[in-house]
Amino acid sequence: MNHHLGQKAQQKLKQLAECSASSVGVTRLPFTPEHHQANALLKGWMEDAGLTVHLDDAGTLVGRYDAGHDAPTLLMGSHQDSVKQGGSYDGIMGVVLPIIALETLHLQGRKLPFSVEVLAFADEEGVRFPTALVGARALAGTLDEQVLNRKDKDGITLKQALSDFGVNPDNIGKLKRDAKKTLGFIETHIEQGPVLEHENTPLGVVTAISGIERHQLTFKGQAAHAGTVPMHLRKDALTAAAEMIQEAEKLAIKMPDLLATVGQLDVTPNVVNAIPGSVSMSIELRSPVDEVREKAGEMLQAFARETALLRGLEYSIKRTYSQNAVECDHPLKLAINRAIVSTNSRVLQLPSGATHDASAMADLTRVAMLFVRCRKGISHNPNEYASDEDMELAIEALISLLTNMQS
Amino acid sequence: MNHHLGQKAQQKLKQLAECSASSVGVTRLPFTPEHHQANALLKGWMEDAGLTVHLDDAGTLVGRYDAGHDAPTLLMGSHQDSVKQGGSYDGIMGVVLPIIALETLHLQGRKLPFSVEVLAFADEEGVRFPTALVGARALAGTLDEQVLNRKDKDGITLKQALSDFGVNPDNIGKLKRDAKKTLGFIETHIEQGPVLEHENTPLGVVTAISGIERHQLTFKGQAAHAGTVPMHLRKDALTAAAEMIQEAEKLAIKMPDLLATVGQLDVTPNVVNAIPGSVSMSIELRSPVDEVREKAGEMLQAFARETALLRGLEYSIKRTYSQNAVECDHPLKLAINRAIVSTNSRVLQLPSGATHDASAMADLTRVAMLFVRCRKGISHNPNEYASDEDMELAIEALISLLTNMQS
Repeated sequence: MNHHLGQKAQQKLKQLAECSASSVGVTRLPFTPEHHQANALLKGWMEDAGLTVHLDDAGTLVGRYDAGHDAPTLLMGSHQDSVKQGGSYDGIMGVVLPIIALETLHLQGRKLPFSVEVLAFADEEGVRFPTALVGARALAGTLDEQVLNRKDKDGITLKQALSDFGVNPDNIGKLKRDAKKTLGFIETHIEQGPVLEHENTPLGVVTAISGIERHQLTFKGQAAHAGTVPMHLRKDALTAAAEMIQEAEKLAIKMPDLLATVGQLDVTPNVVNAIPGSVSMSIELRSPVDEVREKAGEMLQAFARETALLRGLEYSIKRTYSQNAVECDHPLKLAINRAIVSTNSRVLQLPSGATHDASAMADLTRVAMLFVRCRKGISHNPNEYASDEDMELAIEALISLLTNMQS
Repeated sequence: MNHHLGQKAQQKLKQLAECSASSVGVTRLPFTPEHHQANALLKGWMEDAGLTVHLDDAGTLVGRYDAGHDAPTLLMGSHQDSVKQGGSYDGIMGVVLPIIALETLHLQGRKLPFSVEVLAFADEEGVRFPTALVGARALAGTLDEQVLNRKDKDGITLKQALSDFGVNPDNIGKLKRDAKKTLGFIETHIEQGPVLEHENTPLGVVTAISGIERHQLTFKGQAAHAGTVPMHLRKDALTAAAEMIQEAEKLAIKMPDLLATVGQLDVTPNVVNAIPGSVSMSIELRSPVDEVREKAGEMLQAFARETALLRGLEYSIKRTYSQNAVECDHPLKLAINRAIVSTNSRVLQLPSGATHDASAMADLTRVAMLFVRCRKGISHNPNEYASDEDMELAIEALISLLTNMQS
């Protein structure tokens, strides 16, 4: 079988991976020489695909397949940046595949009843500056311009970085798009998880981008000599924490649509022969259904209280972060579904546990996402990989989607 | 009620606490100026009590209440040294109380049918040198003289420290006592745990010094994004560790005579939004009954194996340390029991979870221990405290023990 579109994508992603500040993996932070290099490659390919290219004042590279002034615009794309020593697919694959899809249409002389823009956002990962999604928020008109004053580790403000990159951050407020003229935003992305691979399915339709909440929990007992305090007189903070970890796992197994993770846990004094006097831990909950997540959060807070009470410990628990789920648009999901079916692939519907540019774009327009299987679910890692075959199918699906979509 | 013997003990312990390298708590390491100071005080009080005093070649201060050449010798005492910023009672109280008991007999002109020696061992805590119990081991003839070459953090060998302290470490091998001429070793010590206080009992008879074993366990799973891996596809090392912690606690609650403690636990990568890929943890087991401890160790090793298997994790578990229990001598326990009863106190029998000089002395002679209640079970801490009243009862019990014991 010939996968020349997938091979083309693989080649382009390989070239883009060389735009990296690290030799191991890809390190491409926003507004850096590597970002410039990557944009130069993307610009050339966009132009080959018949797109008109410009860099907007948030540093987003925009390639437009124009259908005339009155036609609405379908937005596609994802982010160009990577984490430190990340992979070659996260974000950037969602820029490359739509370009190749449009190039195919362009070479066939196909016209569409709507314009299409492929967006390469500068910064989704938020690694360089303590903020992210600036490009998407600018389009949605939800950007708090105060964040332009935030600094990277070298003391350079985001505003300065934008200016140095050749755009005018003073005009960032003018980037807000007209929702009425926007058809939607469709983001293609590697799954970054193992579900498609486990289900032996190359492509998936995202149902929603999960909401997240985080709790910080501390149990305080009494540190003491591990040899001199009988079991019934102990106030062991770690055995309480263990109950909590088990309960969070049980709850997430029992409740559909819930993920629960205790990722961080620190023991004091943390020595072999002392009963732990205090434990602090995080509990993170994710769900595509906000009610499920919130209910779980309440149940775990109650469980922490009961555990502390039964064990005679002090405790504190605080919800430190929460972000609501973003529902994907039903007609767009159906359109992606049909497009996948047209490639003779199985379709799997699944939530996205990670946040994406689409999360911020949802404030402007309806959003949907096409997930591509990645090897072993590995992401944010040099071993990140999507196959030629799977990317070929994704490009075919995007072509089908574009040619069958109503404006 | 008058507790003049207890008050006297309290005053002496206060004076000894001033022989400290730290202003907060007591820091009295072996072969230091503070050790010299403390020995000078002890020597004076020993002489007041009619004891003949010498410093042996392991740095143990020995005060002898002599009953003539042919009489056997009962050994008493404990250690003079403290941990860093420790308390005023741990060890040293077991030197002071027998001195006051003998002083009382001396002032009454009482003769005993056996000699008594009060020993103030230099080093039980092992804080300065990476070894401990040298004084007791020298008497038992179990000292590995290689340890004399071990160095403190300033590079001074134990041998050098002994020489500088004014004794001759080359003669340390000659300190071995004749077991036939030794009646036994009775150590008085604060409990360092909360049992006596919880049971509202001032004095306790130690049944045995618990044996100890330590296991180091590692679970290895797969670190991954907390949002993208469904519960059934996770290989979470921390949820496995939580099962282990719960199982160790359950086992110790169910099995009599067992303590189990997970004191140290480290999570990797230990961040809020990552499924823990690996956890390393300690499991410490203590029991006065070696078979109980060993059975528990085997059961927990099997449980670790099953947990890893069920969760698809890799694991390693290794017993890194073990030390058998030391049984206290039955006739000596009965004698202490009777002595406590003679003070009109309740008697509680309990194991010692901590190691003591008696552990090493058991290689020479039969041993027994008298425990004194300490406030809230706190030890190795400036807040360590035993009351005048309780120490008064302990001195009375020692007087009764000495005057009623058969040679």
